[in-house]
Amino acid sequence: MRIMGIDPGIAIVGFGVLDRRGNHLKAVEYGSIQTEADLPTATRLKQIYDACTKLFRVFQPDVVAIEKLFFNRNVTTAFTVGQARGVMMLAAEEAGVPITEYTPLQVKMAVVGYGQAEKKQVQEMVKMLLNLPRAPKPDDVADALAIAICEAHSSQSIHKLSKWGMKS
Amino acid sequence: MRIMGIDPGIAIVGFGVLDRRGNHLKAVEYGSIQTEADLPTATRLKQIYDACTKLFRVFQPDVVAIEKLFFNRNVTTAFTVGQARGVMMLAAEEAGVPITEYTPLQVKMAVVGYGQAEKKQVQEMVKMLLNLPRAPKPDDVADALAIAICEAHSSQSIHKLSKWGMKS
Repeated sequence: MRIMGIDPGIAIVGFGVLDRRGNHLKAVEYGSIQTEADLPTATRLKQIYDACTKLFRVFQPDVVAIEKLFFNRNVTTAFTVGQARGVMMLAAEEAGVPITEYTPLQVKMAVVGYGQAEKKQVQEMVKMLLNLPRAPKPDDVADALAIAICEAHSSQSIHKLSKWGMKS
Repeated sequence: MRIMGIDPGIAIVGFGVLDRRGNHLKAVEYGSIQTEADLPTATRLKQIYDACTKLFRVFQPDVVAIEKLFFNRNVTTAFTVGQARGVMMLAAEEAGVPITEYTPLQVKMAVVGYGQAEKKQVQEMVKMLLNLPRAPKPDDVADALAIAICEAHSSQSIHKLSKWGMKS
């Protein structure tokens, strides 16, 4: 199963692609889409949309997991991130990739086992779990991989449950 | 000059198309794009994107004016409207239509001449200025026409200024 994680934003979009076979996770590709602050917003949104469309075409994920809103963020940030998130969801919908959503709390629980974990701890766990030479930079890339790991864990539990004939 | 006004949203997107010749404004078309609340967000975003793309293709506006964020709205609303606004801006960018943005205050000033004007007053002025038989419903459609009128007035002043060799 191939999973893409996305950490949405307008200046930096982190992405991470994982393959899961049984309990094993393998990082296939990870990086960021970056847009210039002095470009018009519509241009930046189109750059993000085009880059996401290309990522979906190249990596053909079975599912894309996107970070859910920070409810404690301010209204302007929510609006700006919302605009970027809208075009990413559109790109996924057009590529026929199902979308799942996780809050930062769920991601931290899945990756570190502790909802109040610090950024640094999440990055270290991402590095360990995926057996990477170093924690990916910028932070948005590590976050995107963390979201993909969270999806890998939860789709695995659904799989386990369904083997026992239970509904998830 | 052909102007499209858009009042963004996820459940209802109001739109209004005006032609301006000199001081005269004529409503060409107005209405709303509506999406069902029980559909996945990505599906609703794609419906909005497809509808906007079609509107730009059919009406070929020279400019599209979109309402700016209400800074006093709550963070969840800002995020939801942001996602919808993102795909509209993308559709405009792909159609090569320049985007302008106005706050509700600017729209009320342009249409009623009073920033604290009530919704009802804006609707009545839209009806009068465009010589419509009745105020368009739902409110989002009247709001979209109001935004288009605001753009018509401000592009007119830029035009007037440039005739006198002044910078806007």
